[in-house]
Amino acid sequence: MKVRGAPAIGAAAAYGVALEAKRIESECKNPAMFSLQMQQTLDMLSQTRPTAVNLFWAIREMDNVLRHGAHLPVSSQVRQLADRAIAIAQADEAMNRRMGHYGTTLFANRRPVQVLTHCNTGSLATVGYGTAIGVIHALHDIGQLKHVWVDETRPYLQGARLTTFELKSLGVPHTLITDSMAAYFMQQGHVDAVIVGADRIAANGDTANKIGTYSLAVLAAYHHVPFYVAAPSTTFDRTIQTGDEIIIEERSGDEVTHWQGKPFVPEGTKAAHPAFDVTPCALITAIITETGVIERPSREKISTHMRNR
Amino acid sequence: MKVRGAPAIGAAAAYGVALEAKRIESECKNPAMFSLQMQQTLDMLSQTRPTAVNLFWAIREMDNVLRHGAHLPVSSQVRQLADRAIAIAQADEAMNRRMGHYGTTLFANRRPVQVLTHCNTGSLATVGYGTAIGVIHALHDIGQLKHVWVDETRPYLQGARLTTFELKSLGVPHTLITDSMAAYFMQQGHVDAVIVGADRIAANGDTANKIGTYSLAVLAAYHHVPFYVAAPSTTFDRTIQTGDEIIIEERSGDEVTHWQGKPFVPEGTKAAHPAFDVTPCALITAIITETGVIERPSREKISTHMRNR
Repeated sequence: MKVRGAPAIGAAAAYGVALEAKRIESECKNPAMFSLQMQQTLDMLSQTRPTAVNLFWAIREMDNVLRHGAHLPVSSQVRQLADRAIAIAQADEAMNRRMGHYGTTLFANRRPVQVLTHCNTGSLATVGYGTAIGVIHALHDIGQLKHVWVDETRPYLQGARLTTFELKSLGVPHTLITDSMAAYFMQQGHVDAVIVGADRIAANGDTANKIGTYSLAVLAAYHHVPFYVAAPSTTFDRTIQTGDEIIIEERSGDEVTHWQGKPFVPEGTKAAHPAFDVTPCALITAIITETGVIERPSREKISTHMRNR
Repeated sequence: MKVRGAPAIGAAAAYGVALEAKRIESECKNPAMFSLQMQQTLDMLSQTRPTAVNLFWAIREMDNVLRHGAHLPVSSQVRQLADRAIAIAQADEAMNRRMGHYGTTLFANRRPVQVLTHCNTGSLATVGYGTAIGVIHALHDIGQLKHVWVDETRPYLQGARLTTFELKSLGVPHTLITDSMAAYFMQQGHVDAVIVGADRIAANGDTANKIGTYSLAVLAAYHHVPFYVAAPSTTFDRTIQTGDEIIIEERSGDEVTHWQGKPFVPEGTKAAHPAFDVTPCALITAIITETGVIERPSREKISTHMRNR
């Protein structure tokens, strides 16, 4: 949780691999040994956060660099890994800006809108610009944004602590709410769209994201509020067919029962803490990617989108 | 917020009126003056929490005692007010036990169930036994209860701080969750019913209760999970026709942005804090009262129920 946000985890992993390559190089110049140790590094990184598909994507990218450069001197491999990490980070920000632009097309020819967002998906969670916040940023830039409702996002309070900070920096009008208030403001007609990020999207469009996202998707559907997922194509994991195959990370219940290290519940109280949930594709109005919008997503549309990007 | 929970507020108001009568008596023995000062006390109490119908009910009960006893010496009136306050409190606990019993009839001939509850509705919110927790208590007593999911109930955390305490005392197996996890556990098939209390029920069955209740009602409907409201008949307010007429108390945003007096959000962050929301009657599977269950409630059924009780 030192680095959080799916795209940021990907870029951080790439930088981590590049830095580790540099360290290993200083201890061993033998290409075979270097290769073996790098493989161990990649394996270790793969065993960290089960939901973060960008992590695996970044590790695969670095693995490709290693495979294609296996015949090169160690120093060349180290340079190639560093170049690739930098490229991944730069591509991430550029991708987010394109995603933001495509997101605005969903709101064309409308009055400025009120949107609701969950967790943190801005510069603090990506390399730059953000995914869902990137769309909000882009809407704000073209005068199409009226107001943002920020879910506090219990238990970790990423919304209250990070998203408010980013929106304040951007000068975007916003109001913090508890996660339990989202339905109320939808009922009052104050939410024109929900925009969230994603940690992993299955081949059929089922989407894993921060706990509470599924709840918002159901509430949005009930209130006929469009529910948008903003995610770079690296978030799609076509090795998994449906959301059922996504392993949900169970984090410590202490993050629910404690505040700043102190419990606020009776002694012995147990809390559940699934860190993510899975939103079925049928509840998603559109997925916003860096190469365009997939409206009413389905396995077929996602497959076509990925082929054409 | 020193006294909370609709039924507890009613009983506390009755005791408050009785104690104030005692104090006024010590200063003035003139029945006309006593009457005038008591009327001011009742008016003042009426202007406190707009959503708590039990408060108004208790004040009316005390007002009736005063009207019928207006010809009596002040000392007799004071005694009658005290007797009425004690009777209100005793009736409250007896009522809750009957409500608990009627609640269990909804689960007859079933395997032990997993229920989800919101806010605090037990002994700490009523005079005794509780409303929604009363039903949970009664289910536990007859071996029909498997497990309770406790919504932490942001921002005030009544679930995390009070409901866990009560369930622990009762020996009821329970797990604390954030409000945003309710949908996830419904999706996983781990919730057989939602049981909540009520602050006020309109003539058509629309129900005001702690913020987050409406969200649960929508989520329960989507997952085909029955949504039960446990509330004594004093909670029905037939002077209001629909939920649209219920005034929602707006509390300070500081209760969302601060923890134990300290802010955990960037400076200047504004938060909304509607303390209640209104669940439309159509989303309520049944209302459990002290004189029976109103299944698939409607204006007509509520009207019949109130006439026959």
